[in-house]
Amino acid sequence: MTKQQLFKNIKGKQSFLCVGLDTDIKKIPQHLLQDEDPVFAFNRAIVDATQAYCVAYKPNLAFYESLGIKGQMALEKTVSYIRQNYPDQFIIADAKRGDIGNTSEMYARAVFDHSDFDAVTVAPYMGEDSVKPFLVYPNKWVILLALTSNKGSQDFQLTEDKNGERLFEKVLKKSQEWATDEQMMYVVGATQGKMLEDIRRIVPNHFLLIPGVGAQGGSLKEVAHYGLNEQCGLLVNSSRQILYADTTERFAEAAAEEARKVQEEMAMLQ
Amino acid sequence: MTKQQLFKNIKGKQSFLCVGLDTDIKKIPQHLLQDEDPVFAFNRAIVDATQAYCVAYKPNLAFYESLGIKGQMALEKTVSYIRQNYPDQFIIADAKRGDIGNTSEMYARAVFDHSDFDAVTVAPYMGEDSVKPFLVYPNKWVILLALTSNKGSQDFQLTEDKNGERLFEKVLKKSQEWATDEQMMYVVGATQGKMLEDIRRIVPNHFLLIPGVGAQGGSLKEVAHYGLNEQCGLLVNSSRQILYADTTERFAEAAAEEARKVQEEMAMLQ
Repeated sequence: MTKQQLFKNIKGKQSFLCVGLDTDIKKIPQHLLQDEDPVFAFNRAIVDATQAYCVAYKPNLAFYESLGIKGQMALEKTVSYIRQNYPDQFIIADAKRGDIGNTSEMYARAVFDHSDFDAVTVAPYMGEDSVKPFLVYPNKWVILLALTSNKGSQDFQLTEDKNGERLFEKVLKKSQEWATDEQMMYVVGATQGKMLEDIRRIVPNHFLLIPGVGAQGGSLKEVAHYGLNEQCGLLVNSSRQILYADTTERFAEAAAEEARKVQEEMAMLQ
Repeated sequence: MTKQQLFKNIKGKQSFLCVGLDTDIKKIPQHLLQDEDPVFAFNRAIVDATQAYCVAYKPNLAFYESLGIKGQMALEKTVSYIRQNYPDQFIIADAKRGDIGNTSEMYARAVFDHSDFDAVTVAPYMGEDSVKPFLVYPNKWVILLALTSNKGSQDFQLTEDKNGERLFEKVLKKSQEWATDEQMMYVVGATQGKMLEDIRRIVPNHFLLIPGVGAQGGSLKEVAHYGLNEQCGLLVNSSRQILYADTTERFAEAAAEEARKVQEEMAMLQ
């Protein structure tokens, strides 16, 4: 998907919501466990219920990998289902991959050739040649970790170099030598809303994926205030708050309500 | 596996070789492609041929993920095969995972609960809570990326902070607050042999996984000179040089010869 198409979808839906498919078999409604593939059954219902209110889905690969082959099958079915039924949705593999060149090439094949994701999250620690193999696929995206929202983000990401530049700022600057804002986005933790001001100075035009609104405690208003740019420039993710809004047979309706609430708030903020 | 058991195996075999199972279906001998599961057939033959000369195997998960479900099945069969037939081998999931706590927990389940790896490589960028969930499994290991051997390692890993401390040194120091040398090892790129001297000052007792000997250009002698400690403290990986020593029907014998050569060199260095 191109940046233009993504922006068009956002305008059309008045939403920059990304629904995170962190599907935990221990948390889905009991009655689904009788299904042949409970994880896919849950995802399909969530997607059908929420697709009108969001522009992106972000399966978190760890949750599928923890179930082995069955989980992989549920993941592949989920991606195909979204692709076939809602082709305007932007599908992100939240995988945080990153390795030497020939290995990153294989990870790129996994998410872009074998599966049909639009984007993949990538960790920057190993530098340029760990990121570049993902960038050779036309209209596919790298979403590079810059500043995350977890406690451990303080361990290394905020380290200042001799010139007072923090590591996440160095990542934002350096990585612009590798790709434009038509191919790269950044993960930016939402609980640090004011940091977005610093970040927007370095990457005024890029899309930012904000993972921390909802369960992780970020404020949508603050994120929009500091993060929105002329082409929206934000994808705000919510996972648990939507997926597990209700754990009875009406889980999908409850998820839709939660997604709609976020969408309505977003419509007012743009 | 405990550190003591690993050291015992190393002494017994006079080898600290790890064979990297970066199995690329495009590079394995043609005749195997008729097999129902060519990747597993290749791995099984390589393992049978090399197990006498090494103490560890390191499947590179990207290579299996690039093949989807089939690749996952080949990976699971490979790990089970090694575990059942050669229980003394230390099996490393080269995955370079790392995410927020609840997600790292899922990655830990994938490699330690669902599969039966002994260790997993983890990226440090997201800090403590991205690493800790892997550490709750008894006798399982985290192998944390410190200094890698690729060109991109220079982009961020060598950045000096205000006190002149490089990022990889900060990773080595900080992470010792999270785990002891009985649970954690470090990935250290071999092409930077002299850096090992600096590294050994910070982590004198830890095992180091050296991925770069062979195709990536490191020298075994230099690595041993700077890296060996009283309990060996090194696992040196070789992948392509062994796996693809020959691409005819005698590929396994050729792999065994290569592995034996490395083992003989290692026996002289200890």
